[in-house]
Amino acid sequence: MGGTGPGPRLAPTPRTRLRRKRERGSTERRVIDAVLDEGLVCHVAFTDAGTPYAVPMAYARSGDVLYLHGASGNRTLRALADGAPACVTVTLVDGLVLARSAFHHSMNYRSVMLFGSAGRVEGEVEQLAVAAALLDHMVPGRSADARAPTASERRATLMLRFPIEEGTAKIRTGGPLEEPDDLDLAIWAGVLPFELSVGPGVPEPDLPDGVVTPPYVAGSRRRR
Amino acid sequence: MGGTGPGPRLAPTPRTRLRRKRERGSTERRVIDAVLDEGLVCHVAFTDAGTPYAVPMAYARSGDVLYLHGASGNRTLRALADGAPACVTVTLVDGLVLARSAFHHSMNYRSVMLFGSAGRVEGEVEQLAVAAALLDHMVPGRSADARAPTASERRATLMLRFPIEEGTAKIRTGGPLEEPDDLDLAIWAGVLPFELSVGPGVPEPDLPDGVVTPPYVAGSRRRR
Repeated sequence: MGGTGPGPRLAPTPRTRLRRKRERGSTERRVIDAVLDEGLVCHVAFTDAGTPYAVPMAYARSGDVLYLHGASGNRTLRALADGAPACVTVTLVDGLVLARSAFHHSMNYRSVMLFGSAGRVEGEVEQLAVAAALLDHMVPGRSADARAPTASERRATLMLRFPIEEGTAKIRTGGPLEEPDDLDLAIWAGVLPFELSVGPGVPEPDLPDGVVTPPYVAGSRRRR
Repeated sequence: MGGTGPGPRLAPTPRTRLRRKRERGSTERRVIDAVLDEGLVCHVAFTDAGTPYAVPMAYARSGDVLYLHGASGNRTLRALADGAPACVTVTLVDGLVLARSAFHHSMNYRSVMLFGSAGRVEGEVEQLAVAAALLDHMVPGRSADARAPTASERRATLMLRFPIEEGTAKIRTGGPLEEPDDLDLAIWAGVLPFELSVGPGVPEPDLPDGVVTPPYVAGSRRRR
């Protein structure tokens, strides 16, 4: 955590050490957190009765914790709450990489893979904080506007904390690699960048008169 | 496959039967294939030495098969080629759903989860067809322009076929659900739709003079 180095890192473990293309890997928290904070959906891998599952879920990061949530009866959340080992992956695709050769086609992406086990979020104070974090992860500022969860809504929700302790980021950027012999081919090569726009918002038809349209509905925000 | 019904479906199994919100589920191949054909990245869940992994991978669908590929040394692909049970999930996020209550916030999405085991794609004819399918899934028409894989490039690539036999789609659309008592609150509610634009392409700086810019580089295509 010193001020002179590149910032905090996660310690590498056998399952987070990249075996191939290591230059694409990073255990820097700054890099990992940026991916987690930009993504909206993670895929949670866990095993139940011998079957592996990859389940998409919303999430939010707060400090060293990734929060997951859903209905109390949700099978995935219950398995995780019971301590099932899990892998949580967030993947952002930034563009398509078109090389002269089929072989060197690729994608630009940033992904984070975390390993560990989840625990339950208990108690009103933390549950309300997590509910706010989940909303503000979707739409910054939204938690100040939405009606907060009631006690019965909190009971109907299972909230989990997943530690950001063991994991790694993997990032590809830039144009295609090419075989030297391919460079003279008359084939277009380059990158098709992605841009994701969010909004402008489509209001519910039954909004009461006079409801203020909050600034985050305008849709100027973009993610990639 | 008759002309009068809703079209072919995958047979439900205990692990694909939705236990909650069944109205969001579909086993119709038409629905499943549309999600698979629009997505670019799947997340493959499998277990190795007791650890579950969720690994992002490119893919392409052709008929009743999802093709995966990567470097021959890729650990995930090798585990899958050895017959590890797997779950392949494709998730498309279509928008953010803002309800009056924090509790009813949601996302609009379309996801497909497939279960099974992969097999190797062997032989030049099928490997070339799969290479073309993978390119055309990224960018329709690209396989006609790119240089085809050589024998040594094919040896350096591990290609897998994953059957589209057991699985389900799950889809959420539309505005927020709300508690009746919340409808009079002076809180904006609605949907922030997503739009993903691809391109226009950024050419490599070293393209030879006179290389034709193919139409798919223009960037008119959009995915959501």
